[in-house]
Amino acid sequence: MPELRHNVITKEWVIIATERAKRPEEFAKKNKEKKAIPTFVATCPFCPGNEKMTPPETYVVPDTTGWKVRVTPNKFAALSYEGTRERFVQGIRRTISGVGIHEVMVETPDHSKTTALLRDSEVETIIQVYLNRFNFASADSRVEQVTLFKNHGEAAGTSLEHPHSQLIATPVITAQVRDRLINSLHHFDEFGECLFCHLMDVELKEGTRVVYETRHFVSMVQYAALSPFSMIIMPRRHMACFPEINDAEAADLGHNLRVTLAKLYYGLDNPDFNYVVRTAPAEYKGVKYYHWYVSIIPRLTKLAGFELGSGMFINVSLPEENARFLREVKVD
Amino acid sequence: MPELRHNVITKEWVIIATERAKRPEEFAKKNKEKKAIPTFVATCPFCPGNEKMTPPETYVVPDTTGWKVRVTPNKFAALSYEGTRERFVQGIRRTISGVGIHEVMVETPDHSKTTALLRDSEVETIIQVYLNRFNFASADSRVEQVTLFKNHGEAAGTSLEHPHSQLIATPVITAQVRDRLINSLHHFDEFGECLFCHLMDVELKEGTRVVYETRHFVSMVQYAALSPFSMIIMPRRHMACFPEINDAEAADLGHNLRVTLAKLYYGLDNPDFNYVVRTAPAEYKGVKYYHWYVSIIPRLTKLAGFELGSGMFINVSLPEENARFLREVKVD
Repeated sequence: MPELRHNVITKEWVIIATERAKRPEEFAKKNKEKKAIPTFVATCPFCPGNEKMTPPETYVVPDTTGWKVRVTPNKFAALSYEGTRERFVQGIRRTISGVGIHEVMVETPDHSKTTALLRDSEVETIIQVYLNRFNFASADSRVEQVTLFKNHGEAAGTSLEHPHSQLIATPVITAQVRDRLINSLHHFDEFGECLFCHLMDVELKEGTRVVYETRHFVSMVQYAALSPFSMIIMPRRHMACFPEINDAEAADLGHNLRVTLAKLYYGLDNPDFNYVVRTAPAEYKGVKYYHWYVSIIPRLTKLAGFELGSGMFINVSLPEENARFLREVKVD
Repeated sequence: MPELRHNVITKEWVIIATERAKRPEEFAKKNKEKKAIPTFVATCPFCPGNEKMTPPETYVVPDTTGWKVRVTPNKFAALSYEGTRERFVQGIRRTISGVGIHEVMVETPDHSKTTALLRDSEVETIIQVYLNRFNFASADSRVEQVTLFKNHGEAAGTSLEHPHSQLIATPVITAQVRDRLINSLHHFDEFGECLFCHLMDVELKEGTRVVYETRHFVSMVQYAALSPFSMIIMPRRHMACFPEINDAEAADLGHNLRVTLAKLYYGLDNPDFNYVVRTAPAEYKGVKYYHWYVSIIPRLTKLAGFELGSGMFINVSLPEENARFLREVKVD
């Protein structure tokens, strides 16, 4: 018998389709032609030496011979850095000028790498760059919300192979983020606790959905995970906003994120994935009811009409089996 | 300068990325190998003569020599038709037994057809079958919500080529549907009008986003369309629920849906798409604040980390240009 599980964060029910569930191994990329990825590609705008192919950098972590991480405005920015935020209201219609920030963070000079293959210290540096750019964007008076995310592979929406992340700072708080803030506020008012701290406690006690624990972070599959192998990495210490982490936590996150992604990489043969930092906007620093985390979403299945039309997801795998499978993938 | 537009139905802001916008022609399927689709495939479970490959039919529209439309339980059902609805509550965790209805509606015996290529009367018959199955499912006391949808093509989440739609009846009302009901209720309380009737009035007056008008329905691109060429087909008469339509309206919808999809088919070279009937659940029949409609979502772009992480969509096309382009596609 299938099961409907309630996702406490999104408030959506998820169908765990036990009858249609696949074994973890079946999600590995099969039949995909293996090709060696070169460390340098002459036509790649993110490879060292090709810096002129992108807009001038806004931030860089220097190396003895060049750079470790390089940040530039997105050449095909979704929002304009220039201009003022203007609102237009006419009847039921609302419009805002599309101002904001859209940056690309080139994570390493090496074209062939992906997060799973970097060193812990390299991922830590990327996290520190996220912090820098998050704070920079949040300081812009036109900006209400900053979204940090990574698209890896074509199914995840990128055509650029060179490892990179992105930041989009928007002149509004999105309805999705606002809804989650309100839901967790109601939980705090009703139960006097952070919903996310409670969720993490339950998961650590049960253990069946925990994937990897480090000193400051826990990576796990949610009880009502929306899709196969989707995971969250949550800080043990209560913090509403990503920029509240300290240096020790940033280093630990670098390690946890690298290992968690390496488990996916080796266990499922380098699947396409997105990850995103789900944080409250900067102005929420210190609130007791929200708790930031990282969502990792492997793109192993497709959204179809039912999901688009109802908002309800059908997960064709078992969260407990996903977690057990990933725990058993040994990573250095 | 890009523009943020507010989608009045979803309450989400959408980035209309004017700087990255593509011309309508660029969304046509290019380089895709053309292959003739046969009218009959021996291994297809939905082709006539292969009825034993599916579970026994639950409903059929007979033809002189066989059937016009055939409904069966989904062989790989997401929910179980057998069993009772049981709820389990433990701490923050909620679970419901996965009971419900999951049916497949084979739309025509002809394997090679798609909605765009059917006759109006055939699409009308499909609409009448939707009505029958919607009412059948809604009468089940375990069912709270019925979702009717179609997946066309691989990017839309189907691997079966034979034209078919699906129905999933769930034992809960989804958060997405509940949120839209509440939003439109608030609009009604505040302005004394149906939000959707108002929206349609505005669009008909402006005309720039209208794609196709018939006696009882209007197909149009929304001002804040979430993705390229996504459209809605809305009944002119105020109705909260899909099963409130009469026979004349069902016939007119058959024609409007066929022509609207044919404009996509010929204009963009048979793109993959989903459509879904966005209706209030049956118990809402007659309410003044909700208004059902059909959403058509061509799958021309991919969801990436930003959309998943923020809930905000980036539309790389202009709704007004989409509509103009489709208006100019001549269809018999």
